[in-house]
Amino acid sequence: MKTLKNCRPMGGPATDLHIADGVFVETSPDGAETIDCGGRILIPGLVEAHTHLDKSLLGMPWYRNEVGPRLIDKITNEREVKVSLGLDPQVQSERQAILSVSHGTTQIRSHVDVDTHHGLAGIEGVMETRDKLKDIVDIEIVAFPQSSMMPRPGTVEMMDQALALGADIVGGIDPCGIERDPKGHLDAVFMLAEKHGKPVDIHLHERDALGGFSMEEIIARTRAHGMQGKVTISHAFCLGMMDRAYVADLQAQLAENRIHIITTAPASAPVPAVKELKAAGILTGSGSDGIRDTWGPYGNADMLERAMFIGQRNNLRRDDEVELALDICTYGGAAIMETEGYGLRIGDRADAVLVEGETLAEAVALRAPRKMVLKAGAVTARDGACVVAAP
Amino acid sequence: MKTLKNCRPMGGPATDLHIADGVFVETSPDGAETIDCGGRILIPGLVEAHTHLDKSLLGMPWYRNEVGPRLIDKITNEREVKVSLGLDPQVQSERQAILSVSHGTTQIRSHVDVDTHHGLAGIEGVMETRDKLKDIVDIEIVAFPQSSMMPRPGTVEMMDQALALGADIVGGIDPCGIERDPKGHLDAVFMLAEKHGKPVDIHLHERDALGGFSMEEIIARTRAHGMQGKVTISHAFCLGMMDRAYVADLQAQLAENRIHIITTAPASAPVPAVKELKAAGILTGSGSDGIRDTWGPYGNADMLERAMFIGQRNNLRRDDEVELALDICTYGGAAIMETEGYGLRIGDRADAVLVEGETLAEAVALRAPRKMVLKAGAVTARDGACVVAAP
Ligand SMILES: [Zn+2]
Ligand SMILES: [Zn+2]
Repeated sequence: MKTLKNCRPMGGPATDLHIADGVFVETSPDGAETIDCGGRILIPGLVEAHTHLDKSLLGMPWYRNEVGPRLIDKITNEREVKVSLGLDPQVQSERQAILSVSHGTTQIRSHVDVDTHHGLAGIEGVMETRDKLKDIVDIEIVAFPQSSMMPRPGTVEMMDQALALGADIVGGIDPCGIERDPKGHLDAVFMLAEKHGKPVDIHLHERDALGGFSMEEIIARTRAHGMQGKVTISHAFCLGMMDRAYVADLQAQLAENRIHIITTAPASAPVPAVKELKAAGILTGSGSDGIRDTWGPYGNADMLERAMFIGQRNNLRRDDEVELALDICTYGGAAIMETEGYGLRIGDRADAVLVEGETLAEAVALRAPRKMVLKAGAVTARDGACVVAAP
Repeated sequence: MKTLKNCRPMGGPATDLHIADGVFVETSPDGAETIDCGGRILIPGLVEAHTHLDKSLLGMPWYRNEVGPRLIDKITNEREVKVSLGLDPQVQSERQAILSVSHGTTQIRSHVDVDTHHGLAGIEGVMETRDKLKDIVDIEIVAFPQSSMMPRPGTVEMMDQALALGADIVGGIDPCGIERDPKGHLDAVFMLAEKHGKPVDIHLHERDALGGFSMEEIIARTRAHGMQGKVTISHAFCLGMMDRAYVADLQAQLAENRIHIITTAPASAPVPAVKELKAAGILTGSGSDGIRDTWGPYGNADMLERAMFIGQRNNLRRDDEVELALDICTYGGAAIMETEGYGLRIGDRADAVLVEGETLAEAVALRAPRKMVLKAGAVTARDGACVVAAP
């Protein structure tokens, strides 16, 4: 039981909020601990809706990246380097999840590699971390065929096993660019989704008309399988290019079928325009994608910094625009993950972050260490440090 | 007199460096103070080669941005808001310069507004700051016709006065897009440069063929005035678009006339490809551009973060590529500013930064608070805080 004294929910007027049994309640319970928030802004927990917990190199010696320029170079290199470095998905996911919590994240959707080389080791490792850290962060697992599914026999069966074991979501990847078999790949993804009654989240890096084609095929299957509201497309670079009228039509179809978009707002690739997505009524979330891994050195799991990246990439300068970037990193991701009781209303689960700044836009621009992070009312981080030590 | 014990110049093997009379020297002078660097990497001082010291809103109440989307909206709004907010260019430039030093910057090139509305107030204010902070940072001043020169009679004369007063460089701005008179504008800029014997640095946001046209005109005048090595084009967005063969030709001409490029690597605009610039032999520097001003809320004057932005925008992932991004924020900017004795060699001025990380790439990816910053051998910042307090 806690009273958050003198906090400013979403940057509004200062008030006191009360917490009992892990949720926000109307009045102060007897014997509640009082926490002075010093007039800071309170926002609901940040949502990391797209990352790869199983393969960060956090906490390991610096990995000197000398990898080739193509996507396939990175995928092949990673599959091999995981072995040579002795990467442990449990340890690495625990390290990254704790870093996330330190920055105010309260829930994570992680893609986790499933391939015939490493089998279910990644899924098992991240499941162990999910259990170990269940009091500080919620972790949702996507079974992700990073190394491709169709060209590597046995992968569909491994995906099936991963979902039976406890993965929450069926992943997919460039049906043309990587899989070279869009019909085969997407039929398999939606078959697995139907069999296990689980949602879908597909990485789609394909550009221009190629990406548009794959997106059309995803939309068609979402409709055919009645999976409206259960399908997410991650990256969707093609929406950042192509003919404007064609993109508008695609976005209308995404909205109609309640297909969600997750954008990491990369600076070096075309990106969906988040203001257009909002105008079209498409739920949008965001994530860090890979953090300090064999693909690249960047990333720190800070979703307030990610909101800044979304703002910079989409040229969001006005306060209301920067607030949209933050909304994507909070309410947007939570809506895609269908999180119950997300928010700061009475009855909502007390997953929340105290941030520095006079306004929400300043909080995003500053990205100062988080004063306090709460998960179901319990303090999980203070002054930028998680209460749980990383392994 | 100092000995920097156990530091790793540019991430190489650990060694001791000696400083006397503000420069690196061969052997330890008698009575030298020993500083234990703990095996950290030492790099030369970071170079902020493009910013606007006179108009940051740092230290002021949050400015709620509700400005329109066009470039001219931002320019007009800023000219008016400077008055309504009572912006003091001296105080604001001092605040931003001190923030820069805290992050390891040892030299700054700042554009400073010159217009008929505010006259030389900006130039005078930044000149005062330059003098006040001369022991911790070098400031170079560009007289910058932000509000345009040709359409506003009297501005050329104000520019002339600014240069006579002490501005170091002649600024310019979109000869077509803002000035609407490329011949008139560029003739005036190069006339002022010739009259005062000073270099040129022109903001060029114009895109596609329009930017290419203006760039051709800048190249032609550089050649005609024999100003090779004395002209910089800031932003140069057009090099990030247009026909590849045409861009290659333009870049060859830039190299031939030793015209430099400064890129801030914005995520939302096309950018020159830094690897191509390097291959063409074009000196490239970088800067933060506007920091937390009426144009937008972002920016923190951290040039190590800027190196990360360059890396992210140019898709630099390999260690050698990330090192190029850092080189632009150090040696590149210093070469453009023609800084004498820049570097870590014996005889070089001891402007240097101790950074965290196992490698240079990690230092960029981490952007941890700078352990120590030196200006001519004197400590100017420690653990991310400048030794001089901001006003
Ligand atoms: Zn991903
Ligand atoms: Zn500028």
